[in-house]
Amino acid sequence: MLTQSHLYREIYEQPQSLARLLEAEKATVASLAAAIRERNISQIVIAARGTSDNAARYAQYLLGSINGILVTLATPSLFSIYQRPPVLGNVCVLGISQSGKSPDIVAVLTEARKQGALTAAITNKTDSPLAQAGDFVIDLHAGEELAVAATKSYSAQLVAIAMLSTALSDDASMNPALERLPRFVGDTLSNLPDMANVVQRYRYMQQCVVIGRGYNYSTAFELALKLKELTYTIVQPYSSADFLHGPVAVLEQGFPVIVIAPSGPMLPEMQSFIQTIRERGAEILAISDDHDTLRLSRTPLRTPNGLPEWLSPMINIVPGQLLALHLAHTRDFDVDQPRGLRKVTETR
Amino acid sequence: MLTQSHLYREIYEQPQSLARLLEAEKATVASLAAAIRERNISQIVIAARGTSDNAARYAQYLLGSINGILVTLATPSLFSIYQRPPVLGNVCVLGISQSGKSPDIVAVLTEARKQGALTAAITNKTDSPLAQAGDFVIDLHAGEELAVAATKSYSAQLVAIAMLSTALSDDASMNPALERLPRFVGDTLSNLPDMANVVQRYRYMQQCVVIGRGYNYSTAFELALKLKELTYTIVQPYSSADFLHGPVAVLEQGFPVIVIAPSGPMLPEMQSFIQTIRERGAEILAISDDHDTLRLSRTPLRTPNGLPEWLSPMINIVPGQLLALHLAHTRDFDVDQPRGLRKVTETR
Repeated sequence: MLTQSHLYREIYEQPQSLARLLEAEKATVASLAAAIRERNISQIVIAARGTSDNAARYAQYLLGSINGILVTLATPSLFSIYQRPPVLGNVCVLGISQSGKSPDIVAVLTEARKQGALTAAITNKTDSPLAQAGDFVIDLHAGEELAVAATKSYSAQLVAIAMLSTALSDDASMNPALERLPRFVGDTLSNLPDMANVVQRYRYMQQCVVIGRGYNYSTAFELALKLKELTYTIVQPYSSADFLHGPVAVLEQGFPVIVIAPSGPMLPEMQSFIQTIRERGAEILAISDDHDTLRLSRTPLRTPNGLPEWLSPMINIVPGQLLALHLAHTRDFDVDQPRGLRKVTETR
Repeated sequence: MLTQSHLYREIYEQPQSLARLLEAEKATVASLAAAIRERNISQIVIAARGTSDNAARYAQYLLGSINGILVTLATPSLFSIYQRPPVLGNVCVLGISQSGKSPDIVAVLTEARKQGALTAAITNKTDSPLAQAGDFVIDLHAGEELAVAATKSYSAQLVAIAMLSTALSDDASMNPALERLPRFVGDTLSNLPDMANVVQRYRYMQQCVVIGRGYNYSTAFELALKLKELTYTIVQPYSSADFLHGPVAVLEQGFPVIVIAPSGPMLPEMQSFIQTIRERGAEILAISDDHDTLRLSRTPLRTPNGLPEWLSPMINIVPGQLLALHLAHTRDFDVDQPRGLRKVTETR
């Protein structure tokens, strides 16, 4: 039974686990924010792989736009294999990892601490090597994640980053919006159409593209990764701008394109993008809260209205997680144990 | 006739155009390096799209490992669509673009200059908006690039970055190595097997993966982009580490994987990666100067020995360019004008 799988349960646990995180880590995040302010830090470097790297992409846009922080995604091999790390200066280095175990990510934090940078680990395992390498440890409180494909730990990573952004900001409207998020995730889960039915159309889809930009650049990457891990489809994520600089050439009649297009400053860009690729024959699956955008798509997946765009990645990934879950199930794949993957991946 | 195409001629022009660049821009690069030193700048932010973004990935590893510079890839939409740019501080901002025309890239340089950052444009068009937004302009001297798919402007961008790294370094061995590069590019072109023949095996290949890490992370992305633009194959580039964190699940018997594996500190990592994916049935096409690595591959593409790893991206992309050229040609596609693309892409 699909509902008995770890993956199914972990996707549906998200409203509870996010509420737990918001409650439990408020004080730690406030201390980290205080340390960042105290040291006059205006830059953050993030080390992460896989799903956690997609959370890092969110941090790049969120901390940049809300807090004016320049966020750099680290190049772990400079720290591990080449052993020629850059000079970090007065920065905060965040390591993000569910398991806290990948040696290359730990190497970045260890070197950062050696150089005197402020370090913090965002992890689901507070006894991990990554946690030990951090001056601060933000516990994701996602509970044990048993499915190999990360879902509840990903949304928790996004929320941890949003908590940091909120704690660093003077904007008093952010915290109430963040507090409402778990309910929106719950509403997203309960208002979607029957996904077991929706995925039938895609049973034999061999490849597709996922497009998101700005805050939801992260969503495009994470949705693509879930589809790859669980359904073995060849999926490529892009920003709409990068896609037009070359890869658009692969489009042909009926080519499936998943577009993440929430209301907000990015919506006009995504609508014009949808028009462009429709003219070239693409078939659109849209994840959006916008009526007009959903109407342009062959498969509309509606998300709840009323959440600001900066929090939309946490609800936009939910239809993607369910899409990957049900598509894998309808293809008779093991949703908890994809071929060739282990829960903890250790790379140098 | 394929040899009459712009693309063919531009690929084969590279030894000459790179020699021209090395000669003509030495003084400008030295002035930029002096300005970076004078202002005590230890960080570089780069804005670029498409092929130029792949050159930026090279800069991230090269300037990081050789010069200890922390390199950040900019998020142009924060500057253009969201109009919430991060605080840049005492950095140098590089805009890289063949045409110098994409509004989002120009927006990053304009804002950087407004914030008082040092700015430089690396472009093939010295009268472009991007050039006008830069305190310094490095002319790529690639000559008019008429094929839509960028080749000689890409290798020129890599060389411009290598010139900057060399000018910022005290290592006296770098410049002689760089001066020898055009000859190595020529040797690569003349020593490859008959590529029209090599590509026959891949006539009906619909998808593949390209793997590179460290300096050649850039090569993986650029090779993948050429294959997408010219042959409409669904191609995904990855670092070997990122690939193991999830996407490896897509591998099945006979799945084609192109691996960039030059001699140097990264080689043991790439060899162990090749062993892992061979066990899962992947079929390897290797671009390497290393005998043992080439032996592990079904299709070995040998590059000349004797170039240090940091310069290898300039020769490793050459077999990739020829692979894309000949594969497109054998599929009866127009190599100069791929479907759906224009030479200048303007994105907001």
